[in-house]
This record gives sequence, C-alpha cells and structure tokens, in this order.
Amino acid sequence: MSEKKLCNISRRNLIAGAGKLAIGSAIAASALSVGFDVKDADASKKSLKWGWGYKKLDPKEVGEIAYKLWYKGYCCYAVVGSMVLPLRRKVGGPYKSLPIDAFRFGHGGVIGWGTICGTLLGAGIATSFIAGKTGEMMLNDIMAWYTETKLPEYKPRHPKYKGPMPITVSDSPLCHISVGKWMKKANKSFKSPARRDRCARLAADVAIYTVKILNQWVDDGYEYYMENEPQVAKYGITAQNNCMECHAKGIPGVPGK
Amino acid sequence: MSEKKLCNISRRNLIAGAGKLAIGSAIAASALSVGFDVKDADASKKSLKWGWGYKKLDPKEVGEIAYKLWYKGYCCYAVVGSMVLPLRRKVGGPYKSLPIDAFRFGHGGVIGWGTICGTLLGAGIATSFIAGKTGEMMLNDIMAWYTETKLPEYKPRHPKYKGPMPITVSDSPLCHISVGKWMKKANKSFKSPARRDRCARLAADVAIYTVKILNQWVDDGYEYYMENEPQVAKYGITAQNNCMECHAKGIPGVPGK
Repeated sequence: MSEKKLCNISRRNLIAGAGKLAIGSAIAASALSVGFDVKDADASKKSLKWGWGYKKLDPKEVGEIAYKLWYKGYCCYAVVGSMVLPLRRKVGGPYKSLPIDAFRFGHGGVIGWGTICGTLLGAGIATSFIAGKTGEMMLNDIMAWYTETKLPEYKPRHPKYKGPMPITVSDSPLCHISVGKWMKKANKSFKSPARRDRCARLAADVAIYTVKILNQWVDDGYEYYMENEPQVAKYGITAQNNCMECHAKGIPGVPGK
Repeated sequence: MSEKKLCNISRRNLIAGAGKLAIGSAIAASALSVGFDVKDADASKKSLKWGWGYKKLDPKEVGEIAYKLWYKGYCCYAVVGSMVLPLRRKVGGPYKSLPIDAFRFGHGGVIGWGTICGTLLGAGIATSFIAGKTGEMMLNDIMAWYTETKLPEYKPRHPKYKGPMPITVSDSPLCHISVGKWMKKANKSFKSPARRDRCARLAADVAIYTVKILNQWVDDGYEYYMENEPQVAKYGITAQNNCMECHAKGIPGVPGK
C-alpha cells in the first residue's frame, strides 16, 4: 500500500474542513480572532531590533563547523549554525534564543524541492539576523559568487568521503541545477557518499565566503550592491542569470520591459 | 556612473583580503577562534526547544494580515508575520523575541533571484518554528497545493488594486516561473500595481492554507506525507514536478536511478 493510501485524512477533507471553518458561527470566529491590527507590526519593531551584530569569526573554523554540521542537519542548518553557534559565545544576547534546528527545512532546496540551494538560504538567514537590511546586499554578492565559482573548494581536515571530488560551476542558485550538474560530471547518485560530501563541502565554502564578507564589514564597511545590480533591474522580473538554460526556445516577452 | 563603478572595494580585493586572513599569524587566528566544538550543537538543543507550539488562528484574519503586511515588507515577511504576530499574543513566549523583519530577504524568490516563492519560504519558516519537524511535512503539502492551484484566490476587503485580477497555475514553486506566467497572462509588468497586488493576494492565500493545516493539526493531528511523497524518492534528485518545462530536449540521465 502506498503512503498515499495509508492516509486517512485527504486534502479534500482538509479543504472541506476548512470550508466549515469559513462558514462557522460568529462565536467560533471571535474565539479564534486575536483582534490583530496590522499596525502592531510597527509597534513590534521598537522592541525587536533587527540586525543582532557581529564579532569577527575565523573563516577556517566556521568552514569546519559547517562541514560537520551538514552531517547533523544538512545544508541550510549547517550554514546558519556555523555562524550562529559561535556568535552565541562571542556576542551572546538574542543569538542564544534562536534555535538553528528551525532552519533544517531548507535542505535539498527546501525540503527536497530543488529550489534555492540550502547553503545560500542559510547564508541569507544568517546575514539577515546578523546585519539586518545590509545582509540582503551581502547575500546578493554571495549568490553571484556561488553561481560563477567552481565548487566545492573546501578540503575538510578529516573528509568523510576520501575519493576524488569533482568541481562544477552551477551557473544557478538552484539546488536542482547545482547538484544536478555535479552529479552528471561525477556520475554519482544523489544518495551516494560522494554527493553527500560534496554538499557538506559546499556548505563550508558558502559559510567561509559569508564570514569573509562579514569580517570585511567589521574592518572596512561593506559597499553593497558593489558587484551585482539587483536582478529585477537587469531583467524586468525576478530571475537568475542562466536564462537560456531553461528557455531553450527563447525567453517569453516581459511585459513593460 | 553605475553603482558598480561607485564601488571602491572590489570582490577581488575582498578575496585578497581574505587570503591575508588565511595566512595570518597564529595570534590573529586565535583571536578570532571561539574554540568551538561541533558537539555544542547538541548541547544547545537542550535549552532551545524546536517547535514553539500553536493555538488556532482565524484563517480570514490571518489572510488579511498577510495581505496588508505584504505592502510593508513583501511576500516572505508577510506570511511569517501573519502567523507570528498573532501568536505573540495567543502563545507569547519565544514568539515575542523573533523579529519578523529578519525574513524580509525572502522577497522576489530571495532578494529578487526568482528562486523559491517568498510566500512558500515564509510558510516553511512559520511551520518550522511552530511545529518543528512536522512543519516539513506540512510544507511539502503546501508546496504541492501551490503548484497545482489557480491563484490568487483571495479577495481583499479593501483591495489596493481594483482592476481585474487574472489567475494562473504556476506548476512550480519558483517565484520566476509563478510570477512570469501570471505576468504573461495579465500582460502586466513586474512593477505594475496589478502585479504587486497579485503577490499580496498570493501571500494571503498561502497564509490561509497554512493556517488551515495548522488548525487541523490541533483538531485532528496531521497525517504528514499523506498527499505527496518526498521529491527525491520520486525523481532520484531534489526536483520540482514540471520537468519538461525546462528540459525541453529531454532530462539528462540521473546516475544511479
């Protein structure tokens, strides 16, 4: 029997159940309501500082932490943890109450759907919590670097996989394309020890590059958008740079562009 | 002068600077090091419970919050905030110290790169903080529903854009594909008020669907992986379901599959 068959609550029932909710009594509705006003989002800002700060970390140490954490909770968890865990000691404060487990879901391009590489999602989460709005600009450069660079570069002190490690350029921030190109070159399956170690090393590479940027931010400031202009400005739509890889028959017209 | 030209710190300098770090003295290295042992990641678990709990929310109210929050911080921020802000009142505790601003970077498929739709990233973050590991299973169903459904469905009480609102099926969790198909059908630019309102309504739709699942979780439990098996099990690689949309000339062989 398939997993689907084992289920005794179907999505149809879920929707039907939700429909009952929607037509429920005013009493039930008021029981659920918190009388929330969206203006409260502003009020919350006053007590919740965004951008928790940073003290310089050793890129080598962070890389090694990311590599090891990958084997505990995969890519996104590894990159977030490689910075948040040392910062709990070095900065303390709110970092002490951010559970890195909450970012496990980023694995495999978000629970295996092959969207954004979990290492990049982890870098986005870490830079945002650390540097606030400036984190977005850092992430833009991290993503551009990731797509253009032969990876993985990282050599673990004690590699779990000791065979040859091919390197590839993803030309894309997507997990599916990044790992797919590597799997093709390496002729290894997704579940192979070689592929697993490739992604663990990639987590180290992204964590190291991110920490180099953060350290530069401390030393010299960080001139954001310095290397890469926003994608929407370039393309008139949210986009990657590898257009023709998917649009083999030409890019559909972009209205207004 | 372009933004690029304005920059006086190039990526080349960044890498060179990082190189200096790598060959820096032992004294400098020890100043950066926190002497972190990866085993500490386990220790942190004891003090940091993952899965902060939930009390039922009114889907209609959550949808309206998401719609309004979109105009403050875009898609990912809107969906996270639509649940976290009411839960600060209903559950309190750790929700009170989670800054929703930290998830603004998810806009436009992560800072405009068109990867995962920010509404889905927001649902992933919210379900993970709320339900822990079970959140992954919920997100798997939310993502499948998103790709198969004509959206947006949501009708705001006071729409910012009052013109006709086309609906489209994305067949993909990617921002670029989802918004691109809508832009083509609507013949609207990315920066048009219609496109903006489409994404604000989509944030409401995803928030509402997520809350319906969370409410069902409270009422009846939630049989996860009930509707959709993991992507890697289906394809032998992290993947979406719309293979031929990109692989117009056929899917490259998947090693080991």
